[in-house]
Amino acid sequence: MSSYLDYQSSKPVDPRVIEAMLPYFHEHFGNPSSLHGEGDEATKVLEDCRQTIAGFINAEPDEIIFTSGATESNTVALIGYASRNRDKGDHIIISEVEHISIHNIAKYLEKDGFKVSRLPVDQYGKINVQKLASRITPQTILISIGYASNEIGTIQPIAEVGALAREKGIAFHSDAVAAEGLIPLDVKKDQIDLLTISSNDIYGPKGIGVLYVRKGMRVNPVIIGGGQERGLRSGTENIAGIVGMSKAVEIMRKEMTEEVKRLTGYRDTLIKNLLARIPKSHLNGHPIDRLANNAHVRFEAIEGESLILALRDEGVSAATGSACSSKTLEPSHTLISTGLLHEEAHGSLEFTLGRFNTEADVDRVIEVLPPIVERLRKLSPLYKAEEMAT
Amino acid sequence: MSSYLDYQSSKPVDPRVIEAMLPYFHEHFGNPSSLHGEGDEATKVLEDCRQTIAGFINAEPDEIIFTSGATESNTVALIGYASRNRDKGDHIIISEVEHISIHNIAKYLEKDGFKVSRLPVDQYGKINVQKLASRITPQTILISIGYASNEIGTIQPIAEVGALAREKGIAFHSDAVAAEGLIPLDVKKDQIDLLTISSNDIYGPKGIGVLYVRKGMRVNPVIIGGGQERGLRSGTENIAGIVGMSKAVEIMRKEMTEEVKRLTGYRDTLIKNLLARIPKSHLNGHPIDRLANNAHVRFEAIEGESLILALRDEGVSAATGSACSSKTLEPSHTLISTGLLHEEAHGSLEFTLGRFNTEADVDRVIEVLPPIVERLRKLSPLYKAEEMAT
Repeated sequence: MSSYLDYQSSKPVDPRVIEAMLPYFHEHFGNPSSLHGEGDEATKVLEDCRQTIAGFINAEPDEIIFTSGATESNTVALIGYASRNRDKGDHIIISEVEHISIHNIAKYLEKDGFKVSRLPVDQYGKINVQKLASRITPQTILISIGYASNEIGTIQPIAEVGALAREKGIAFHSDAVAAEGLIPLDVKKDQIDLLTISSNDIYGPKGIGVLYVRKGMRVNPVIIGGGQERGLRSGTENIAGIVGMSKAVEIMRKEMTEEVKRLTGYRDTLIKNLLARIPKSHLNGHPIDRLANNAHVRFEAIEGESLILALRDEGVSAATGSACSSKTLEPSHTLISTGLLHEEAHGSLEFTLGRFNTEADVDRVIEVLPPIVERLRKLSPLYKAEEMAT
Repeated sequence: MSSYLDYQSSKPVDPRVIEAMLPYFHEHFGNPSSLHGEGDEATKVLEDCRQTIAGFINAEPDEIIFTSGATESNTVALIGYASRNRDKGDHIIISEVEHISIHNIAKYLEKDGFKVSRLPVDQYGKINVQKLASRITPQTILISIGYASNEIGTIQPIAEVGALAREKGIAFHSDAVAAEGLIPLDVKKDQIDLLTISSNDIYGPKGIGVLYVRKGMRVNPVIIGGGQERGLRSGTENIAGIVGMSKAVEIMRKEMTEEVKRLTGYRDTLIKNLLARIPKSHLNGHPIDRLANNAHVRFEAIEGESLILALRDEGVSAATGSACSSKTLEPSHTLISTGLLHEEAHGSLEFTLGRFNTEADVDRVIEVLPPIVERLRKLSPLYKAEEMAT
């Protein structure tokens, strides 16, 4: 038996999405730029999908720009917006718990002459909107705050950030990749100007994503060519991928309420049981304002990597830190931002649940993890020292 | 009956490629950055595909960078190389017959302070390597010459350009999208430093491509994030797409010789018959150094767009100008570069053949096009005026 609880790193494509995509590989393969029948058909499909996806976030179809995924969307949102609006100011605000791509883009912008403020968070990984307001200067042109943490699952007060940014005339970007499919997204209600969503995070194929660009926002393209997507993203459109993402949206709109309810139940069972059965264990992230699929738990005096490998032997797949940095030795910048020491951050496991999990997966983790922690702690000099001290 | 002869705009994915991709959507969906079994499996698949694709162009696996397609590869090659090597010089040479993406990237670089020379071509669309040499200055850092024209099919003397660039210590990029699958590619023999190839142009899925970056070349990334692809292209890898491109390469390596022979036969039949049966018709592009699948024919005193629409009524799909500019009223920059007047360029049709064409498709065009041209010319005031003059 094998249990996958790392939906944040990668999601299987929903079989209904695969079925919807299939005809667009070989039979309906036209280029929307062509004048013949195959081209017209591709144009129609492209615009239908754009409309479906716009509806998912309460945007207009012409505010939807197809990209190759979330990293590209984030790059265009930050670099494209900042470079285009440099005459208005040179200051950007992000939070300390942003996805690694936002952090690396921010470093790139600093090299390019921009100033970046990194807003600290509380012990749960949550920003404070008053503190955010205090960082705004007349030079601030862009605020980028992720909808929810892709690591610890903490949900940010996005509508409040949106109201503040709109009031101050500052552009507001949000990376909603961790939140999409778990929280209803509404760019109008939340007053978001630029929004990143990906296809795979709602069980669509990889290699496709969207940047929502509110009407009137001026953004430079990053990938330059034939002028597709209103000049904001050149390259022949990946129609099969776009159809897949659109189908993923359709399914999600229908099933999200039920799915979130089910995942919340699994998540709570998992958190409650792990904390109860494993001594010296703690929940990372916010206890209430938390993604429905996220259980991020820290175990004292133990290495997350050893835990992952031991779980692997039991057929359980989970993550330590974020997917992007699992293969580095650096502790998660998000956990450090919440005030954890390096050695505390290292002993964390991230379980993220998804559509194809069942109760049996949760039970399996609850069954196998406590003895693993006990066994590993027995081998840990650090733990022995701690035990002696208490 | 319906005949598609616009393979340059878009190609159907080979059914064997679809079959190879399918398991990577739902069953084997891991993220190579993960530490668990699904992640390890994805890493292995990724590196196997990298090796297969490297073999296709005689490169080393770690010289293969996966991108979202040719437009992105071209953007990274030109903007990424130029911005990283600005200290060496500010001059770039392209040809007048490059793909629209190279032209638009060149304009972007000019705005950014670089100087761009656009090398003219002869009446067949071919560059002259002596003329190229005369354009080189001590400030020249990059030469970008497409392997073959995506419009008129003319093949460039790539090995000569490579030898010249290497001798002068100038980086050489070639967009090989129109040539791949029709001409064997060898980056070592041709002394190419940066090469763009796409997946769809060899019957793989859209949304995936490669930039070959020769070892030791220093290039800035354009899409910034988690540091995948040696930092040159961030974003979770699109494994299904990569598997598809790799399978497309495998098939092409086996079948290319036979396929090129077959397509050359179709092409020659098509060109010979159209020129013979339609008065005042001319071949665009080179008569010999020409892609095996390209028949680009010009008809005096007629509009390409009317021809496309009339062919469409007969179930034949073709292109006027290039796929990228079919929906604009501007005449093809490539045809203008070969010395044609605007009104001459407008009367052109591009037929590009491919894997799923049969002799019947060629016969169909030869049957339906001559009466279409005759009918349209009867309606054309321009043609009547010409006839009176002759």
